[in-house]
Amino acid sequence: MKKIILASKSVDRGNIFKHSGIPFEVLASNIDEREFKEKFSDPILLVKELAKAKALYAKKELLKKNSQAIIIAADTIVELNGEIIGKAKNKKEAIVILKKLMGKSHNLITGMAITETNNPKIFIDYDTTSVEFLNLSDEEIRGYVKINEWKGRAGAYSISDKASLFIKKINGSSSNVIGFPMHKLYETLKNEFGINLFLV
Amino acid sequence: MKKIILASKSVDRGNIFKHSGIPFEVLASNIDEREFKEKFSDPILLVKELAKAKALYAKKELLKKNSQAIIIAADTIVELNGEIIGKAKNKKEAIVILKKLMGKSHNLITGMAITETNNPKIFIDYDTTSVEFLNLSDEEIRGYVKINEWKGRAGAYSISDKASLFIKKINGSSSNVIGFPMHKLYETLKNEFGINLFLV
Repeated sequence: MKKIILASKSVDRGNIFKHSGIPFEVLASNIDEREFKEKFSDPILLVKELAKAKALYAKKELLKKNSQAIIIAADTIVELNGEIIGKAKNKKEAIVILKKLMGKSHNLITGMAITETNNPKIFIDYDTTSVEFLNLSDEEIRGYVKINEWKGRAGAYSISDKASLFIKKINGSSSNVIGFPMHKLYETLKNEFGINLFLV
Repeated sequence: MKKIILASKSVDRGNIFKHSGIPFEVLASNIDEREFKEKFSDPILLVKELAKAKALYAKKELLKKNSQAIIIAADTIVELNGEIIGKAKNKKEAIVILKKLMGKSHNLITGMAITETNNPKIFIDYDTTSVEFLNLSDEEIRGYVKINEWKGRAGAYSISDKASLFIKKINGSSSNVIGFPMHKLYETLKNEFGINLFLV
């Protein structure tokens, strides 16, 4: 199988790839996400454009080195009533975000882009999962934020870790909530790039 | 906080507890599950009775040693159109189970039981999550079974691992699919046993 490059430095995303037995190398993209956030106010368009930009950045870097690979990029945001919620910058912001999300459902949206170094085609898609939280008190939220799980996570939580204690239910892909809709990865690699992850 | 005993030798279940930052020790119960399966044909009653039996077994063992603890037990099965599907005994059985589950939705049901060594109360509950699979071919199923992820798992798959590639969507608690409905653990310990996992 051709080398797989994951154009993302997300630890959670890397972990799902590892647990799925997919060999990969990381090549994180140096994209100014703020620019995109100013330009695209539609959540789905934003994550798709960010995933595309990350994939194309990685492709350019690989071509410079004459390295052949399949490139997989993604971007995840939380959306609540049309508002785009990204990562918190500090504890205070994490508390504000979590307070907003408690006791209701939000959408976790991941944009994905897959391309190859020797192929002009770029496949772009997205996936949405709704996530419903229990209603934690402010004191409990402060207790959760203390353990720093909010750091680097869209929506300031990690479903694979302690946040599982306040996630009442989800509807949609569960791997999407961690950082990549893995069923769409399998389908896209099979249908668009001729790679079957169960027959390698 | 009082010592927590997880009356289960499931690696997946242990992992969710670890990732949730809950300190625990394992005390696996020596229960003849076949007896229960013959006695209880209702899936929900079966997992509740099995969880209860495991919790009470662990309690007896702990009391023998004069050890004080909170005991958490669980049992997970897959249910498809009323049929109870447990763990596969070998590769051939794993293939038969997975063929049945492909291209449709099944229910993942976990029974849970929580008690304390110094408390006659035993709290018993269950949780159901529906899981929808993509439609993998027989060849792909054989490819999946080769990596031995089916071993020791109800329904012969592990949502945290490679099976995420063929899980289209879930509806309900995602930790329940791994082996324990963690939001119910948080609620039960808080409401029934006075332990708040966010304030420890």
